[in-house]
Amino acid sequence: MSIRIDYSNMIGGAAGGIPAEEWMSSAAAFENAHAGFTRLREGGKVGFADVVGDAALLEQVESYADSVTGRYADVVILGIGGSALGPVALRTALSPSGWNLLSDDARGGFPRLHALDNVDPVTIAALLGRLALAKTLFIVTSKSGGTAETMSQFLIVHERLGNAGLTIADHVVFITDPAQGALRPLAATLGVTALDIPPSVGGRFSVLTAVGTLPAALLGIDIRSLLEGAADMARRCDVARASENPAGVYATLQWLADTRHGKRINVFMPYSDPLRDMAAWFVQLWAESLGKHTADGESVGQTPLPALGATDQHSQVQLFMEGPEDKTVTFVSVSDRGMDVRIPHAFADVKELGYLGGHTLGELIDVEQRATAGALAKRGRPNLTINLDRVDEWHVGGLIMLLELATAYAGQLYGVDAFDQPGVELGKQFAYALLGRPGADAARKEWDTLPEPDSRWSV
Amino acid sequence: MSIRIDYSNMIGGAAGGIPAEEWMSSAAAFENAHAGFTRLREGGKVGFADVVGDAALLEQVESYADSVTGRYADVVILGIGGSALGPVALRTALSPSGWNLLSDDARGGFPRLHALDNVDPVTIAALLGRLALAKTLFIVTSKSGGTAETMSQFLIVHERLGNAGLTIADHVVFITDPAQGALRPLAATLGVTALDIPPSVGGRFSVLTAVGTLPAALLGIDIRSLLEGAADMARRCDVARASENPAGVYATLQWLADTRHGKRINVFMPYSDPLRDMAAWFVQLWAESLGKHTADGESVGQTPLPALGATDQHSQVQLFMEGPEDKTVTFVSVSDRGMDVRIPHAFADVKELGYLGGHTLGELIDVEQRATAGALAKRGRPNLTINLDRVDEWHVGGLIMLLELATAYAGQLYGVDAFDQPGVELGKQFAYALLGRPGADAARKEWDTLPEPDSRWSV
Repeated sequence: MSIRIDYSNMIGGAAGGIPAEEWMSSAAAFENAHAGFTRLREGGKVGFADVVGDAALLEQVESYADSVTGRYADVVILGIGGSALGPVALRTALSPSGWNLLSDDARGGFPRLHALDNVDPVTIAALLGRLALAKTLFIVTSKSGGTAETMSQFLIVHERLGNAGLTIADHVVFITDPAQGALRPLAATLGVTALDIPPSVGGRFSVLTAVGTLPAALLGIDIRSLLEGAADMARRCDVARASENPAGVYATLQWLADTRHGKRINVFMPYSDPLRDMAAWFVQLWAESLGKHTADGESVGQTPLPALGATDQHSQVQLFMEGPEDKTVTFVSVSDRGMDVRIPHAFADVKELGYLGGHTLGELIDVEQRATAGALAKRGRPNLTINLDRVDEWHVGGLIMLLELATAYAGQLYGVDAFDQPGVELGKQFAYALLGRPGADAARKEWDTLPEPDSRWSV
Repeated sequence: MSIRIDYSNMIGGAAGGIPAEEWMSSAAAFENAHAGFTRLREGGKVGFADVVGDAALLEQVESYADSVTGRYADVVILGIGGSALGPVALRTALSPSGWNLLSDDARGGFPRLHALDNVDPVTIAALLGRLALAKTLFIVTSKSGGTAETMSQFLIVHERLGNAGLTIADHVVFITDPAQGALRPLAATLGVTALDIPPSVGGRFSVLTAVGTLPAALLGIDIRSLLEGAADMARRCDVARASENPAGVYATLQWLADTRHGKRINVFMPYSDPLRDMAAWFVQLWAESLGKHTADGESVGQTPLPALGATDQHSQVQLFMEGPEDKTVTFVSVSDRGMDVRIPHAFADVKELGYLGGHTLGELIDVEQRATAGALAKRGRPNLTINLDRVDEWHVGGLIMLLELATAYAGQLYGVDAFDQPGVELGKQFAYALLGRPGADAARKEWDTLPEPDSRWSV
């Protein structure tokens, strides 16, 4: 059981990476960052690294999950952003491939899991149209307890359940902050169970609370092992020396690469289908935490770019190899995939096929990862590889904690608050104004100052 | 039936966009680009815009599709990159939501469609394990006729079909170049039908050949209308004046934004679940076509970044609003979604819910798009909106052609060959060397010059 980072291909000035001396002399910067984060953590302001050891939270989730075991064929998350990305990433990583397409038997009686992470009427109508509501549980997840998209979905589901003569409390569970928003009082009114996202845990850092663990538990995923893997990584990272702290290595290297070497884009590229949706989860984490104004008004933040190996060798790698030298690539490799498929010997005289026989697909995907990393290094394109022994609960928990801690450290290094998202407020206010929400008068006035579309600038 | 681009939010120096005079004075640059592309097209080198009117190709696809109607419950694409991204985007855009999860009846007897776009053994074993091979068609798609990942998958499927006592020719069809690679002679050996990707059409420009149209036709999608929409857009773009040519507008604006205003990242963000997978298709098109060395050895190319509205307002928009000013955002909006879902009035006294009642989800998603575009513009972040009347075959065909032509023009503007991918060769050769493919000796020697992982640089 181990998670290792090999960052040989990040170091070395000539190869386009970070000079070794620069990396070594960044120790003080990381020590400060670690100390800054530790203050937030010990002050109770930032809880994501500590809640993974909170027995009461785990008990709340397990006891609710136990109470509904076997009752539902389908579970639907109503949630957007951090409320959907984490649980979807866990499903893809830790349930058998193609989970929702499997028969009830093949799923071992566990439910399918859907995420309604948008408000396109087409998708919602289609999903609600094909579910048997009497056998469906809706998990309404909103940290703030007021997210417009999620509230809209809830209003629709609430009406549908009522029309079907079903009891709301039997088909809905809320996951929200205990101290803010509409869901908490609504839970009392409706008799609906409400599970906690602790106030010190923001939405995009919430996958290891009920946000992710309840859906996971309902699918039969071992959430204790998930949390143990995360706690183990948090302990490993409890050291102020960057070179011994995996999250410290990741944060410091990316920050140096971006701010001193123009690597403005952070490509996240697992070579593993189960880890496919981790990339989208990481994109939110890195983008929304770091894409900020500093206190000096500077606009900072690396842009995360999701990719998948070997697939995107046939899509994006051309750009990574020959395009602007503004990227780092983070590979995630897997040592033991738990099974493998042999490529048979056939058509031995056909040069495009003959050499493949006798290898396995696992070998092929690993070789492609190493070949791509080597080719990028050869061309002076810095990259690093996070290796997981296996894709199981313990390692996925550890990977999540590694990336969450790295994000928190990076916030300190950039000098931004990694835990807010002030930049989305203006768009929200404009939407409120256009929808006529009371209290949006100021936004309405600001909206009215925007120039009309200019007919010259259309085609 | 119309596709419009509103680029008001791209123009205007003070607002972070392109000064109007600069845009207008770029007419000559675009005229040259248009002429350069027209020469490639008329010289028969680049065929993607013309094959949409090729009756013989269409006939080939329709006649094969007709001949297999009703025979398969599942269709599996073995293909990677352009061989999978296009057909998957068409399925998501033009088949009912959640197609593969629908019952046989709800699918009207049409098959499910799967794409094996990677070589992770976990995924392949799971899919092959749950399909009824006797009711499955495998579409093996490779422009080059020798893609390692696809050939490996084919070898495995070939063996499985044989073991099941099934006739290869009844369960496999090839889509490949008529004049290169292993699949064409294999087709003859095995008696397998082989459909054409014309030599003048590269993989990432091939979605409107059999690569996309065969899978689409098998799902009951109207491929004639798809091709007509594309042909209509090609005609609209047959004009050398940038401001009258939708693809010219798109290409020229992005090129100016990148090369003169530091907008190195092109965010592609449809506000439509059916268009979700078009973003991944566009990423390959833009990245692999433009991420290149110029003749002068300069590394160029905007980095495309996929996003989805409203979902990614809760993931990436914080970065777009307050992060580095290095992005343009391309919204895709839809006027008529074909249906809508009303948000019921309920909990009128709860401020987070009350204002939503009486609106529809379609209104909500549209308002969010306008609000986000307005907020970005207000903060000096340039963006444009491509509007489709509807998401149907005609409009999707038109959108595809718009973006393909824009990519071809952009290649001319950047001074790169938009139709090759030399940068992926080194990684391929390294993989061949590691797999022991004959003829990879030079790559093996180069590989051996790479430094070993340095144990100092790992944690």
